Amino acid sequence: MGVQARAAAHRLAQLSAAEKNAILLGMAAGLRSATESVMAANALDLQAAADKGLAPAMLDRLRLDAPRLEAIALGIEQVATLKDPVGDVMDAWQRPNGIRIEQVRVPIGVIGIIYESRPNVTSDASVLCLKSGNATILRGGSEAIHSNKAIAAALQAGGEAAGLPEHAIQLIPFTDRESVAAMAGMDKYLDLIIPRGGKGLIETVVALARMPVIKHYDGICHMFIDAEADGEMAAALVVDSKTQKPGVCNALETLLIHAEVAPRLLPAIAAKLAEKGVELRGDARTRQILGAAAKPATEEDWHAEYLDLILAIKVVPSLDAAVAHINEYGSHHTDAIVTADEVAAERFMHEVDSACVFHNVSTRFADGEEFGFGAEIGISTDKLHARGPMALRELTSYQYRLRGTGQTKGR
Amino acid sequence: MGVQARAAAHRLAQLSAAEKNAILLGMAAGLRSATESVMAANALDLQAAADKGLAPAMLDRLRLDAPRLEAIALGIEQVATLKDPVGDVMDAWQRPNGIRIEQVRVPIGVIGIIYESRPNVTSDASVLCLKSGNATILRGGSEAIHSNKAIAAALQAGGEAAGLPEHAIQLIPFTDRESVAAMAGMDKYLDLIIPRGGKGLIETVVALARMPVIKHYDGICHMFIDAEADGEMAAALVVDSKTQKPGVCNALETLLIHAEVAPRLLPAIAAKLAEKGVELRGDARTRQILGAAAKPATEEDWHAEYLDLILAIKVVPSLDAAVAHINEYGSHHTDAIVTADEVAAERFMHEVDSACVFHNVSTRFADGEEFGFGAEIGISTDKLHARGPMALRELTSYQYRLRGTGQTKGR
Repeated sequence: MGVQARAAAHRLAQLSAAEKNAILLGMAAGLRSATESVMAANALDLQAAADKGLAPAMLDRLRLDAPRLEAIALGIEQVATLKDPVGDVMDAWQRPNGIRIEQVRVPIGVIGIIYESRPNVTSDASVLCLKSGNATILRGGSEAIHSNKAIAAALQAGGEAAGLPEHAIQLIPFTDRESVAAMAGMDKYLDLIIPRGGKGLIETVVALARMPVIKHYDGICHMFIDAEADGEMAAALVVDSKTQKPGVCNALETLLIHAEVAPRLLPAIAAKLAEKGVELRGDARTRQILGAAAKPATEEDWHAEYLDLILAIKVVPSLDAAVAHINEYGSHHTDAIVTADEVAAERFMHEVDSACVFHNVSTRFADGEEFGFGAEIGISTDKLHARGPMALRELTSYQYRLRGTGQTKGR
Repeated sequence: MGVQARAAAHRLAQLSAAEKNAILLGMAAGLRSATESVMAANALDLQAAADKGLAPAMLDRLRLDAPRLEAIALGIEQVATLKDPVGDVMDAWQRPNGIRIEQVRVPIGVIGIIYESRPNVTSDASVLCLKSGNATILRGGSEAIHSNKAIAAALQAGGEAAGLPEHAIQLIPFTDRESVAAMAGMDKYLDLIIPRGGKGLIETVVALARMPVIKHYDGICHMFIDAEADGEMAAALVVDSKTQKPGVCNALETLLIHAEVAPRLLPAIAAKLAEKGVELRGDARTRQILGAAAKPATEEDWHAEYLDLILAIKVVPSLDAAVAHINEYGSHHTDAIVTADEVAAERFMHEVDSACVFHNVSTRFADGEEFGFGAEIGISTDKLHARGPMALRELTSYQYRLRGTGQTKGR
């Protein structure tokens, strides 16, 4: 599969944007015409999951129905409308000796995607890789294996009818641990692995991989209400960040509030959160202010990614203390300050070492779509190559092209 | 050391370009005032190396004298004159909802450098990391341990007198394998490891590292003389690429020549190479043309990075065959075409999957200085984050800063 993917990657790198877009439309058509077979395959996965006693939330993540499949097809068509990053001249200059240098975006090559239950990743990931000129080797989870195979077959059939190179998208038909280990050792054939799933999966890939891995770890996101914060804005931003969709990585997990304004602002914020059913866990000072409305927070709460209607709250004496807390306990994903003080906001954004730092914006905006990228393959918590929302541009590498007239280094 | 480096990195990230430049000048001064102690330490290393019977070339790489130390100090001062990449706004835009987004360069954090014999790397690497706002943990080879300790101490003393944060540059005082393994597992404290040395060292780091590694593997560089090449230019470029400095990664190792022009051009090129003492190893067709002037090449020669006055030569039937050979046997470092045919040149540069692709330019120009970067930490043969000459810009990450007016995702 690795050899085949390399050959496909070479052909993909030569395709024009128009050719790739035609292939994408073919893939969407292929998926639509395979609706019945995909749903039949999905029924097998759902039955197996029910037999295993999987939780309803897990079953829902696994379920494909006609509207969900149509949404996946529309997603593919939307990617066809995005700008192709390949061939972009990132930088160009001329040297005194007359050599002209261009730095040009090129595809990465072959990308391995290792993911867990949700079968839509089979389409989402391979489509973004294709648009950026990369071949993919997919390895999905056992729960969705029938669905994944059916989706991959539909994408391949529809794509190949429209010019998709053979082996550009390959799905590993195994879901055991050995297949992850095998991929992790394929550094000759895989230029990058992106694991999408729980911490256990990511840890396994990181420990084994010989090639670069871009990780999408957890989001322990903070919001700091500064002494100069507008109370209403702060309440609205906290409620939105925590409750608009609590189960995602850009949801708020810990609220920090400046001691000067905590007594005045916390009760109203707590009341609004209570209306939304949020459980509060506060430090000693928070509980002095809120009383029984907040349970006591322990050290574990500052490390927690609840992904649920729970919020840890800490009163801090200063901006410096807020920054120090975030840099120590956060996951370097997304952290926000609410303040009318521009100087404080700039200091916060310069000193917090996170992929996304926000001033007077809900943490929920840490998202490729909201950034205007059209689609994202995830939110990188790494610092190398891609950080934060990772979209088409981050699925490319670059190459230096030098044009001269016979320049030699010796005289 | 990891904890200390993290704290230092936080302080380094807040320094202005002027502050960092003052520190660099202090480091250069520190090194100059420590000339005697560094040379005394170097004498210990040289003695130990001589006792071990190290080859003269190795001894020369290890040797520091007053002119070499002055060159290192001048190198530090030159880095002070380079533009600081930190804080550069790489991209900025506004969303329809009014949120302003900036993508800003920030330091990576803590960078581990693992290197072998040459003690100047102690200065070169830590200075480039410092200029880009990163803390470093250095682990040099056993042959240069006394020199490395003396240089690191001189840089620290001179730097700290000029404001260098404590622990910004740390040298591991051990040179055993365990210290490499320990660094490779420090993914909480090291954001990146750059191994500089032989293949064995790099392989060890790649196998063990849990964090990103940027590799500087070998340079199996090719030059393809196309059917439309100017004979004189081709000969000059081949001779320069092969002989101007044969022991480096951007030196030519394999010459490919189009069958149409091989009988006419090869003899003159071979004669010029013979004048420079280059041993030729050709395929069957090359030997038909050159006779006894070329030894027979074996499969191994196409894989060889000679780093010596030896050149493999192959006659190919077409541009496609040249591209296929390079993509199969090359190391994706630097490959050049010589031709007057612009269409052929563009096809070559688009289809050869290497960090640097050149048209009518000697391969010896694959170099950060020659690109105008001022200094380089190496030439990456990886595709992620940094590819090709790796300089200050490639020692940075980025951060998204969003500024809003209370935007929430829910209505």
